Amino acid sequence: MGNTFGRLFKLTTFGESHGNSIGGIIDGCPAGLEIDFEHINLQLARRKPGQSSITSSRKESDIVEFNSGILKGKTTGTPIGFIIKNNDVKSKDYDHLQNVFRPSHADFSYYAKYGIRDHRGGGRSSARETVCRVVAGAIAQQILIKIGVKIHAYVSKVGSVKLNKSYLEIDPDKIFSNNVRCPDLSISNKMIEQIKIHKENGDTIGGQITVFAKNMKPGWGEPVFDKLHACLAKAMLSINAVHGFKYGFESVDISSCKGSQVNDIIENSSGKTKTNFSGGIQGGISNGNDIYCKIDFKPVSTIMKNQYSSDETGKVTLIKGKGRHDSCVVPRAVPIVESMMALTLVDHFLISKTNKI
Amino acid sequence: MGNTFGRLFKLTTFGESHGNSIGGIIDGCPAGLEIDFEHINLQLARRKPGQSSITSSRKESDIVEFNSGILKGKTTGTPIGFIIKNNDVKSKDYDHLQNVFRPSHADFSYYAKYGIRDHRGGGRSSARETVCRVVAGAIAQQILIKIGVKIHAYVSKVGSVKLNKSYLEIDPDKIFSNNVRCPDLSISNKMIEQIKIHKENGDTIGGQITVFAKNMKPGWGEPVFDKLHACLAKAMLSINAVHGFKYGFESVDISSCKGSQVNDIIENSSGKTKTNFSGGIQGGISNGNDIYCKIDFKPVSTIMKNQYSSDETGKVTLIKGKGRHDSCVVPRAVPIVESMMALTLVDHFLISKTNKI
Amino acid sequence: MGNTFGRLFKLTTFGESHGNSIGGIIDGCPAGLEIDFEHINLQLARRKPGQSSITSSRKESDIVEFNSGILKGKTTGTPIGFIIKNNDVKSKDYDHLQNVFRPSHADFSYYAKYGIRDHRGGGRSSARETVCRVVAGAIAQQILIKIGVKIHAYVSKVGSVKLNKSYLEIDPDKIFSNNVRCPDLSISNKMIEQIKIHKENGDTIGGQITVFAKNMKPGWGEPVFDKLHACLAKAMLSINAVHGFKYGFESVDISSCKGSQVNDIIENSSGKTKTNFSGGIQGGISNGNDIYCKIDFKPVSTIMKNQYSSDETGKVTLIKGKGRHDSCVVPRAVPIVESMMALTLVDHFLISKTNKI
Amino acid sequence: MGNTFGRLFKLTTFGESHGNSIGGIIDGCPAGLEIDFEHINLQLARRKPGQSSITSSRKESDIVEFNSGILKGKTTGTPIGFIIKNNDVKSKDYDHLQNVFRPSHADFSYYAKYGIRDHRGGGRSSARETVCRVVAGAIAQQILIKIGVKIHAYVSKVGSVKLNKSYLEIDPDKIFSNNVRCPDLSISNKMIEQIKIHKENGDTIGGQITVFAKNMKPGWGEPVFDKLHACLAKAMLSINAVHGFKYGFESVDISSCKGSQVNDIIENSSGKTKTNFSGGIQGGISNGNDIYCKIDFKPVSTIMKNQYSSDETGKVTLIKGKGRHDSCVVPRAVPIVESMMALTLVDHFLISKTNKI
Repeated sequence: MGNTFGRLFKLTTFGESHGNSIGGIIDGCPAGLEIDFEHINLQLARRKPGQSSITSSRKESDIVEFNSGILKGKTTGTPIGFIIKNNDVKSKDYDHLQNVFRPSHADFSYYAKYGIRDHRGGGRSSARETVCRVVAGAIAQQILIKIGVKIHAYVSKVGSVKLNKSYLEIDPDKIFSNNVRCPDLSISNKMIEQIKIHKENGDTIGGQITVFAKNMKPGWGEPVFDKLHACLAKAMLSINAVHGFKYGFESVDISSCKGSQVNDIIENSSGKTKTNFSGGIQGGISNGNDIYCKIDFKPVSTIMKNQYSSDETGKVTLIKGKGRHDSCVVPRAVPIVESMMALTLVDHFLISKTNKI
Repeated sequence: MGNTFGRLFKLTTFGESHGNSIGGIIDGCPAGLEIDFEHINLQLARRKPGQSSITSSRKESDIVEFNSGILKGKTTGTPIGFIIKNNDVKSKDYDHLQNVFRPSHADFSYYAKYGIRDHRGGGRSSARETVCRVVAGAIAQQILIKIGVKIHAYVSKVGSVKLNKSYLEIDPDKIFSNNVRCPDLSISNKMIEQIKIHKENGDTIGGQITVFAKNMKPGWGEPVFDKLHACLAKAMLSINAVHGFKYGFESVDISSCKGSQVNDIIENSSGKTKTNFSGGIQGGISNGNDIYCKIDFKPVSTIMKNQYSSDETGKVTLIKGKGRHDSCVVPRAVPIVESMMALTLVDHFLISKTNKI
Repeated sequence: MGNTFGRLFKLTTFGESHGNSIGGIIDGCPAGLEIDFEHINLQLARRKPGQSSITSSRKESDIVEFNSGILKGKTTGTPIGFIIKNNDVKSKDYDHLQNVFRPSHADFSYYAKYGIRDHRGGGRSSARETVCRVVAGAIAQQILIKIGVKIHAYVSKVGSVKLNKSYLEIDPDKIFSNNVRCPDLSISNKMIEQIKIHKENGDTIGGQITVFAKNMKPGWGEPVFDKLHACLAKAMLSINAVHGFKYGFESVDISSCKGSQVNDIIENSSGKTKTNFSGGIQGGISNGNDIYCKIDFKPVSTIMKNQYSSDETGKVTLIKGKGRHDSCVVPRAVPIVESMMALTLVDHFLISKTNKI
Repeated sequence: MGNTFGRLFKLTTFGESHGNSIGGIIDGCPAGLEIDFEHINLQLARRKPGQSSITSSRKESDIVEFNSGILKGKTTGTPIGFIIKNNDVKSKDYDHLQNVFRPSHADFSYYAKYGIRDHRGGGRSSARETVCRVVAGAIAQQILIKIGVKIHAYVSKVGSVKLNKSYLEIDPDKIFSNNVRCPDLSISNKMIEQIKIHKENGDTIGGQITVFAKNMKPGWGEPVFDKLHACLAKAMLSINAVHGFKYGFESVDISSCKGSQVNDIIENSSGKTKTNFSGGIQGGISNGNDIYCKIDFKPVSTIMKNQYSSDETGKVTLIKGKGRHDSCVVPRAVPIVESMMALTLVDHFLISKTNKI
């Protein structure tokens, strides 16, 4: 259970980190969309490991093969099946972990739930799974672009290095100009330095991604339980290592401000507001102003230091970090965050088509 | 759409702030549960308006009538229909708002979505809707208590007044000993003072609620999209005025800490960890340690000050705050947060029954 | 579980035969529909007991009260809650059945499933539940009428008395001209006679309803599992006492005919076919031709004859039929069948709005 | 939409008749099941084309490759991805049909719905899609066998040749002893003859499959809308070419019998009934007696005769049947029917685990 995202634009995925392949099925993609395969590949390249000195050295070509639902480059309305081979699998790196639960990983919880687990590379709990989200998210983005909506995500914090700018002040074209995906070059250099220091120490560091959607349409989001921001929160929290979510409210602390400070004055009948503390969503429904959210990532749990833990029998065991891992997950997570926002927005866009008679 | 919560334990609700009544249907409640009606009424009393000097003066008895699914005090497995009358409705207070969109309310977004809106008391977008969540949440809590799981929520922040304690340091029995629902009496007095000051100024203030579940069972949560914490995030963000969510990580800033600091060492084969930065969930599945989350509420949008806004024709209009409202929503939201956590956990508890052959 | 019908136009219901009330919530009804309350009442009147000499003598006024989702007669897009009081409840009639399982009723199966059951009037398994389907179905019909689609159902068989006409040959205006709801008056008289004979004998008799939709639109239905006719079959089989379903193929026996006999030649680019053995659906998608189905009802299980059965302890017990029941269920089921078809079609109409970009 | 079956045991499929491959994802399969791959292959072999003189001559090896969710032969609880290559694709056979709508196929309805269609071999509307149902159905059967439930399907009618026996009178071991899958050898020979005659004439013929489940457990099925038989009806009607469904009532005509004839007397507290006209389901919930259904298939629409039809522009066109097709679909549909019953039953078995506290 739980391997499907969305209600009308539905992504279902399968695959383990060290299985032969990973893939998914998109059901509900509207017919007649001309697929931009280059854009999909671009997003995959931005996520894939081994792309720079600050990411995992696992080498995956991450070539997606589409098996159905596309005819002569256009979607037909039938399910889009796709598959990505796992190439650079080094399962031997995990032999010593067969019976031991790594700290802050999903080893114990999977075992407790299912009574069985694939220990190789974290199995299904590996972030390798997110490659499928990027494939579907890229297609979702292409639908949104057709109606004008444009999504951008960028790294706004790595450890103690923070970008002190609103999303309105950055240049989206500069996001991918550097390995850490922060659009401010002086800050991005500091971020990269911070990651490298932790990598050298065999340690890891957390970070934050900011994501926004411009040129939004009003009327998306289904109250009361499927509020647009609630669905966005779920989408983001479903990404590996995410522990926190905030939408709207700029750099203001939500819980300590006054109503008179943060009420967004509506300027005209199109719903345009003077300020946008609401983050483009009111009562769970988009109001046409920009949507923006901040997503907090914890440090990666696999560290290259000695740690004690328990094995299946309860025996305390010393674990030494092995395998190829990221010291900071946020640079590669940028296209994943964009994808999850796109999947959420497209789903609500489709639902909104049925709101009026 | 969007008025159903849950997959196996499903709550569907209806009702507007100023309609004749509000209610819901619980489908999937296991049979054979002896309902504790006093507990339901207690939770309703904790949520209802007019209960103290720091809440809205609207007077609602909030008496729930059950129409089905319960026989001689026990659930039968069939849907539980329930209804609550709206008594103290003063729709005239909203006559002047018929064609105007209040700032930071859902007036514009509902209108944009549906082309029609119930302007009286915010209609469906009113937090009055949450009364149904408390009814269902109380029943969900009773199921959880049967298997040992106990949920508590409390106010951990109001404006600038913050409780600087871990959830482990507070006494749950003291939460409801005061009107603001903070278990530390010296802090709670400061919080009440803060709310009163803003009320006198016709202003409102945000706050934060901390919620935790003790004696958790491992194995709840469905990766990859329905991770337990992702579902909790959605549940919490679906509550009116919530803008932020964080799980685990105590008072530590998620994005700026190192892996070696926050990895939770597993002590034995039951999954008990030395620290609990993971917040009781790993890879989206509970690991048996306590779950805890922090939920940030924005200040209430209805202020008793003059504000400009736009009406349906785009004309700028001066609005003066009227109606009966809370200056700070968090004290009354405590049982709502508990309810949403209970609904989420029960749903995943039921799903987890099907994980093994 | 199982008390919700539909994906975008969703009906969730509650209520037992002898509870204080019965009702439901419609979620996903498009906004802006002007509700025709008279039409709803008309459909309810056609279903309600006590309306003629051939139906159950239970007297229910079946007055529906709407609690939300409708403002000044128009739907607002928010959930429509509704409730119907149970008035003429004679639970004492069922005292002798408290521990005994009636033959061919749901007494045993509910007990086996839930370990508890409401024995009064069949509890949730009573056809009283269908009153909620008629309320929602009437609203669904009103949406369909707005886009031109018109549904009619009629009794085509009672016991051995069969109407040997195609649905194309009958006059829909004559359906409700008689108590048995067969549009052919000479046949309807024979049907009424047949019902009366069985009633006098304390026995019951089965029957068949034919339902059709005219002026259909092409493109409704979602292959491969949610084919339009598969959803119609589920809808119809979910009605109490239904055991059989057939769509298309006129009076021809499906399994014994040849392809060359029943292939529907397409006459023009609008998809109009010369014959319509396909019943307006091809590959699970409507093709714009009429949809028609035949639904077979078993005889009512409650007979006024002595029957042996088992009680909860396994003791064989003599049961004598008591209570107020229909001798033949089909006359009152006509609006129910129409409702289930309308609910199914509206749901697929809404989904079809999202099929193209 | 519509490419997912089930609520807890969920099958999602993709693939067109002439795409490079076809496959699916099973989400919610309980962990710890030791997969019997030989049984899966056996069921696939029973469905595949080219297996005998009375089936389509298309040659497909139908080798399924599993990509995830199975570790050392056991299910892990994570999604099971699988893929089957399409080998013997002769798309050229369909070149002449690129712009023309074949009679009684889904050509027109897909085009009307999506504005685009894959004309090669019927695209997604081809029965080739059912190969995925057999893979998942075989796994579902293996779960059922673990708890004792055994499903068998067989051909009970081909054209005018009917097997006049109850399912209780046949020997399941003889079903696959012949090409037509009728357990009575003298009848099966007549059926084969009938199919051959129609094949020689370039024509096709309908048929009927009977399916039953023995050693059933009581308590499966979710009233009121997800009644077990309603879900079975939907499952069966979702199979290509099925137009009719009946459950229970042996060879008796449902609509013309009397209550006193067909009421099933309960013999003891285990729910065992003297007769079983109810077909093992009462009020939508299994009662522990055998479930049995009859499913009517229309004749295959592709005939080897000249037929007129319309093309996309409305021009009348003569079509001559080409391609490799079955003259009668029922022999190959036997494992498909078994699979759909197994998928339905397993899903309800899992749900039933959550019915009691």
